[in-house]
This record gives sequence, C-alpha cells and structure tokens, in this order.
Amino acid sequence: MRMESNLQKAAEFLKQADKIEILSHQYPDGDTIGSAAALCRALRKMGKQAQIYCNDPFPGKFQYMMEGLTPQSFESQAVVAVDIADTQLLGPRMMQYATRVDWCIDHHGSNTHYAQNWVVDPTAAATTEIIARLIVEMGVEIDREIAACIYTGITTDTGCFRYTNATPATYRIAADMMEKGVDAAYINRVMFDTKSRARLELERRVLDTMAFYFQGQCAVIYVTKRMMKESGASDDDMDGLASLPRQVEGVKVGITMREKEDGSFKISLRSNNGINASEICSKFGGGGHPAAAGCVLHGSVEEARQSIVQAVSLVLGEIQ
Amino acid sequence: MRMESNLQKAAEFLKQADKIEILSHQYPDGDTIGSAAALCRALRKMGKQAQIYCNDPFPGKFQYMMEGLTPQSFESQAVVAVDIADTQLLGPRMMQYATRVDWCIDHHGSNTHYAQNWVVDPTAAATTEIIARLIVEMGVEIDREIAACIYTGITTDTGCFRYTNATPATYRIAADMMEKGVDAAYINRVMFDTKSRARLELERRVLDTMAFYFQGQCAVIYVTKRMMKESGASDDDMDGLASLPRQVEGVKVGITMREKEDGSFKISLRSNNGINASEICSKFGGGGHPAAAGCVLHGSVEEARQSIVQAVSLVLGEIQ
Repeated sequence: MRMESNLQKAAEFLKQADKIEILSHQYPDGDTIGSAAALCRALRKMGKQAQIYCNDPFPGKFQYMMEGLTPQSFESQAVVAVDIADTQLLGPRMMQYATRVDWCIDHHGSNTHYAQNWVVDPTAAATTEIIARLIVEMGVEIDREIAACIYTGITTDTGCFRYTNATPATYRIAADMMEKGVDAAYINRVMFDTKSRARLELERRVLDTMAFYFQGQCAVIYVTKRMMKESGASDDDMDGLASLPRQVEGVKVGITMREKEDGSFKISLRSNNGINASEICSKFGGGGHPAAAGCVLHGSVEEARQSIVQAVSLVLGEIQ
Repeated sequence: MRMESNLQKAAEFLKQADKIEILSHQYPDGDTIGSAAALCRALRKMGKQAQIYCNDPFPGKFQYMMEGLTPQSFESQAVVAVDIADTQLLGPRMMQYATRVDWCIDHHGSNTHYAQNWVVDPTAAATTEIIARLIVEMGVEIDREIAACIYTGITTDTGCFRYTNATPATYRIAADMMEKGVDAAYINRVMFDTKSRARLELERRVLDTMAFYFQGQCAVIYVTKRMMKESGASDDDMDGLASLPRQVEGVKVGITMREKEDGSFKISLRSNNGINASEICSKFGGGGHPAAAGCVLHGSVEEARQSIVQAVSLVLGEIQ
C-alpha cells in the first residue's frame, strides 16, 4: 500500500532528523493538537529537539496535552505538518511555512499534497490514529502522556465515537491507548460534558428562538450579535450549536441562523432522511455536504428565516 | 475463574434447554433489552423456542432490537434473567418469577444471587458484554441483528463510551460488533442525539431556573409538577437532566430538585473534585455514591433550595 510505505518513509525521515518543527492548523482542535503533542513527545523521547507551532494559542481545555513540553528554541532542520489539509489552514502568522513542509501527516481526503512528502489516510477517523502508527514505526514506546494525546484526537474527531467516521480500528486504537493508562472518562468529560456559563446562557436564549414548521419536520433557531454579546459568548461557545435543531424528534431539516458582523445571516442546515442540505443551500449560492451545508442570507431575522423555510418547503413537498 | 466456568455452565444449560423465558428488568433500558433480544435471537438461531418478558413495554427507540422477533407462546421449561440485580427489579407484574429463575446473567456487583445459578461479572460495562461471550460459548455466530443488540447495551450503559466503566475490553467488543455490520452512528444518534419536543421544552424551562452559589461552585435547577405538565414531559424526558448543572464549567456541586406528587422535592446531587455527595445527602436522611446521591426535602422551592445549598456551603467551606 502506498500509504503504509509512505508511513515507513516518514518514520525513516524522522529517525534521521533533528531540530523538528511541528505545525498545527489554525483554530486548533483536539486532533491537530493531539497529533502535534504526541509526535513532539515521541521525538523528544528519541533525544531529538522538537517544537510545536500554531497560528493560534491552544484553548485551555487542551492544555493537559502540553504539560511538561517546555519550549525549545533551535534553528529548524525539518518541518512536519499534522492534520493540515491545505496551506490556507496554516493561518496568516504561519504562512511562511507554506512552501517548507517536508512531511504532512493527515486524514483529510481533500489534502492538497502541498508538502514535499505526505501520509494521507482518509480511512483514519483522526490524524492521531496515523500518528500512533507512525510512533510505533519509529520504535518509540507509547507512554501514558502520548496515549492521552492520541485518544483525545480520536474522541474529539468522532464526537465521542458517535460519527460515521469511527471504525472498528478507531475503537481498537482507543482501547490500546486506555491500556497505556489514559483516563478516557476524564478526557470525555472535559471535551463533551463541560459548558461555559456563557455557552449555557447562550443556549438558553437560543432555545427560546426555536420555531417549528411543516408538522415539526423543520426546526429553526437563530443567534443574533446582541444575544452573543448579552450572554458573553465567544466563537468557541458556538461549537455544536448548529446540531441542536436536528436533535429534536421528528425534525428532518434543522436550521441555525447566525447574524454576522455586517448584519447578514450565516445559515447552517443539517438534514436527516436523505434530504439534500447542499441542494437547498445551493439555491442561495451556498453548498456543502448532503447532510450538512451552509449559505448566507440578507435581510431581517424574519425575512431570512422565511426565505430558507420556503426553500425547505419545496424539498419536503417533493418527498412527502 | 469462577465467572468463566459459570459462563460455560450457563452455555451448557442453554444448549440443553428449550422453551426458554427471558426476563428484562422493569423500566427497561438499552442494556436489559439488548441482553434479552441478543440472547433470544441466538437461542432461536439454535432452533429453540424463546420469548422475552418484561413488566413494562419497551420504549419506541429500542424497537429496532425486537424487529422480526415474533411472539412465541409455549409452556416454560427454563427461565433466564438478564441485567436484573434483585428480584425487586422484576417489577410487580413479573413477581411470580422471583423464585423461578434458573440462570441470572448480570454485571451488577450488587447482584443478590437470587437465581439458582448466575454469571455476575462487575468488570463488564454492560450485561451485553457477558451475553456476547455467552453466545460465542454456545457456538452461535453473532449476526448483524445480534451485534446491534450487544452494541446498544454497551453504548447506553457507558453513556456512549464516556463513563469510567468503559474498559479496553468494552471498546474491543464494540469494534467486533461493528465488524458484524452494526450501524453504530445510527444507534448513537437515536440514543444520545434525539430529544422529544417535550424534553426540549422542559429543558428550556429548567435552564431558566438555574441559580449559582459560592462563586459558581454550586448550581441548582428545579422541576415542578407544573413545568412537567406544561411542557408535556413524561418521566422518560427527565433522563440525564440531573447531570445538567454539573456540566457547567467551575461547578463542583450540581443539584436538581424535582417536585414529587406530594409536593416534596426529590434532590439529585452530583459532585466533582472529590466532594462527597453521599455525605451531604445523608444529612437529610438520603444517600448514594460519592459523586451521585439523593435525598428528599419538604417545603417550598425556596425553602428546599436554601436547605440543600446551606448543607453544600459547609462542605465547600471545609475544602476551601
């Protein structure tokens, strides 16, 4: 297999290398941080110098993966990008690396192969799955700290083993990591069962806006700039909010409208039962995946809502 | 090992038996239904007659496990109880079985050994984990339908692999079941990402009641009879509500007060950071586990809330 032979080559490269810079993508999540931290720890265990760089600071809830990883300063001899599908995702402050990546380790099928070399495995639920194999290939023993990073990438990218991307292999790697001593329940509590007070306040306000259409088959919520400000919520607090309407029993199309800076509305549409979300959004110049798509609408809350609900009615009419 | 030798004996017993009645516990959940349905399917695959009995009907969201299991009527020759720790949990309508259970298959350490024989493995996250081993021991191939039942028990009893009871073995059995063709993402969506409109309405009202104490270390919500009635919520809709307050960042003690028929309040207390929930509740004649306990308080909402918050203040004071 191409991918596995590349994995061996990547391991060979890293075994020879020293003074390695590891890049995470902007707006970093559990998988890019977990991948970077696991790889950095493994390289340092081999006696090498290694350092992680990212356009943005790592959110506080991920800090446990960085514990003990004291900053190192050195002149870079090698650059590895993890979980970065495209150079655009490096972020503006990291753009100088765009043409300098020796190896890219990633699980996005959309990877643009911008690096000199790459290991891209779209069957992996998380990039940390590939990193785990890479570390074994490099001959480094996965310890508890590395295992926690790998588990974090897996659980965050699969929504705690809920999404369709979680495969039997994903579950088995998670099991292997737990045997290294990972406190999976703690990690999952921090990642999935902890809400900021601002998020809670925002959720309360947002639930008040929920409106149902077509005998409950369509649900719409909205978030205004004012609601964000009054609840003290940040962009981080919006995480997963767009999945709320579709969670309601009987809802086939769930819509979240978020007011942007210029007063227009960013529409996130999620669908069940084979309703094509992308098709609906394409009517407004948007697009996306069959079950999750988006577009931008102008006008007041009421006008924007009416436009999108009208478009949904046509699709629901077709399948009724 | 005692447990495994019992598993072999249970398999031997069932291989010899026919006309087998399988019992699930009252207020049935994913694990007791999954265990019963998986075992019933395996026994029927062996050409035996087998039928499931329960004090209560199975909730609609679990019906996929029963698909194709047409009712059979026969004179019982053997009785197996699954996931039932105590005869009290049979429920009033099933009490006639209390002294007639040949084998009990269970994962509760508190099992009272009321059956003639038992396989009790408290290290199993779900009883379906044990049922999976039992079916293999009986020499029956686990098909997709059986696998879906086993996966369901595991994911519901571990809160989608979130709780501390999920072990590496749990993850690996789940992986094995997925390889049999289980649509894990679908099951998890139905179990964890679907809310009734009544539940949503109740949640909205309950969030409005959330009050914080001691610099956000303690959060209290309440549910009155009137809120239940106005939102159209049933007892099923209360599921997991008690974990809401503790999910808020910074909260060490989360309290849910639910008004009972007689106007008193059932208090559910959940704690983090080593605060002993059971100790707090014991002051009011209640009890439970270190991180989850309960008691009953009388008086108005305000009076009940003041009493429990006062008790919490003493404990928070001690550790501050």
